[in-house]
Amino acid sequence: MFANRLSNLCVVLCAPSHPGNIGAAARAMKTMGVSDLRLVNPEVFPSDIATARASGATDVLDQARVFSSLAEALADTQFVVGTSARNREFVGEVLPLRAALTQATPHADVSTVALVFGTEMSGMTNEEVLRCHTLAYIPSNPDYSSLNLGAAVQVACYEWRMLAEQPGNYAAPEFALASQQDIERFYAHMETTMTAIGFFNPDVPKRLFPRLRRLFSRTRLEKEEVDIFRGFLRSVDALTEKTHTTKSH
Amino acid sequence: MFANRLSNLCVVLCAPSHPGNIGAAARAMKTMGVSDLRLVNPEVFPSDIATARASGATDVLDQARVFSSLAEALADTQFVVGTSARNREFVGEVLPLRAALTQATPHADVSTVALVFGTEMSGMTNEEVLRCHTLAYIPSNPDYSSLNLGAAVQVACYEWRMLAEQPGNYAAPEFALASQQDIERFYAHMETTMTAIGFFNPDVPKRLFPRLRRLFSRTRLEKEEVDIFRGFLRSVDALTEKTHTTKSH
Repeated sequence: MFANRLSNLCVVLCAPSHPGNIGAAARAMKTMGVSDLRLVNPEVFPSDIATARASGATDVLDQARVFSSLAEALADTQFVVGTSARNREFVGEVLPLRAALTQATPHADVSTVALVFGTEMSGMTNEEVLRCHTLAYIPSNPDYSSLNLGAAVQVACYEWRMLAEQPGNYAAPEFALASQQDIERFYAHMETTMTAIGFFNPDVPKRLFPRLRRLFSRTRLEKEEVDIFRGFLRSVDALTEKTHTTKSH
Repeated sequence: MFANRLSNLCVVLCAPSHPGNIGAAARAMKTMGVSDLRLVNPEVFPSDIATARASGATDVLDQARVFSSLAEALADTQFVVGTSARNREFVGEVLPLRAALTQATPHADVSTVALVFGTEMSGMTNEEVLRCHTLAYIPSNPDYSSLNLGAAVQVACYEWRMLAEQPGNYAAPEFALASQQDIERFYAHMETTMTAIGFFNPDVPKRLFPRLRRLFSRTRLEKEEVDIFRGFLRSVDALTEKTHTTKSH
């Protein structure tokens, strides 16, 4: 499954501010056999500077897709690893890069895995971090941990390739994971249903949905599992409607 | 010995042609806690471009030393790992980066290890490769294996740091290795002695010294072992002189 593991990885750059770094990332990806580059609100793209820095990897740049939100960039992906030196608000698993990717590579046998990088100066935002299943940090000098964006992509893709070559120490997942889009729709559905039955008050949301996101991120929902939950929610919805109809009589 | 392993590593760049790459290498090193940078015939150094790319790692640039030959840059080092995508003339061990550095890191407990990078466009020369004990290659896309110099330094220093944190799966070497300078003097002495006794003909050198270098590179000579050989050679020299003196009588 080596070929799958390389073709099923996408690298997502959030708001890259220097086109040179986009080129460096493309080159870094291609040296490791990775080609799916996604850009969320790049400051400048396309750009001659990016093309120059990409050296012989202009094909990766040519195929790169631009999105206006991280949610759109991740819509068809199924496992999302964020890279962040800092933990901040994230309540899920935070692992060293190699450990995080060891978990992620077997999923790429059947699912699409995203590796998300934040903007150069400030890294991933809290909102971006919330969309990740796992956060990976690159072990580094505590006094100076700021890898250049291109260098961080290089290290991550190198580790990915090294791990992709290994069979993995547990059975590869048999079922495809749910896509991010399916999962976001599931959350939206859950919010509607829970509001309708009075369990959730959108005006006083507290930490309910962040905690639910944490739980479901950890479990790596499969597509069929999401279908089961959606079916359950639809049954609740039908009941609510019926009750409302009865009441109004 | 984690601190030793970081402080006893030096990164040697042979004839870097772009000052930006020197800066990127300095930054890459510092993010991994490595600080000893050595430059052999850099095209431009110091340079504002290097300083800009080094970002917060200007201290590494300020302390960088410039040499006019690789031999001088390696004089006080004891274990030399070259990085090269191609094998060429090298007859010693050629290993993937992680395997090569797994061998090298324990030596850094008591010896200085050098990690040598060739010039950007063409990599290490045959002559430079000959000065290495081991060659390391970064596993990469066979159709596009050309990592940017700064990116290659980043990956290598990242692997070094990951391995430096591990105790290693065999006992750390107890005796310091011989320095490259000591070993070069030993080769020079051997050549003189072998020429004097008629075993070696400098006009028809054949592959004798490349093969001896291969042998001794593999053995990782300790300082005391070099002393023993030098003592033996001196005895041979004394005998040769005596014979010549006798003959001339």
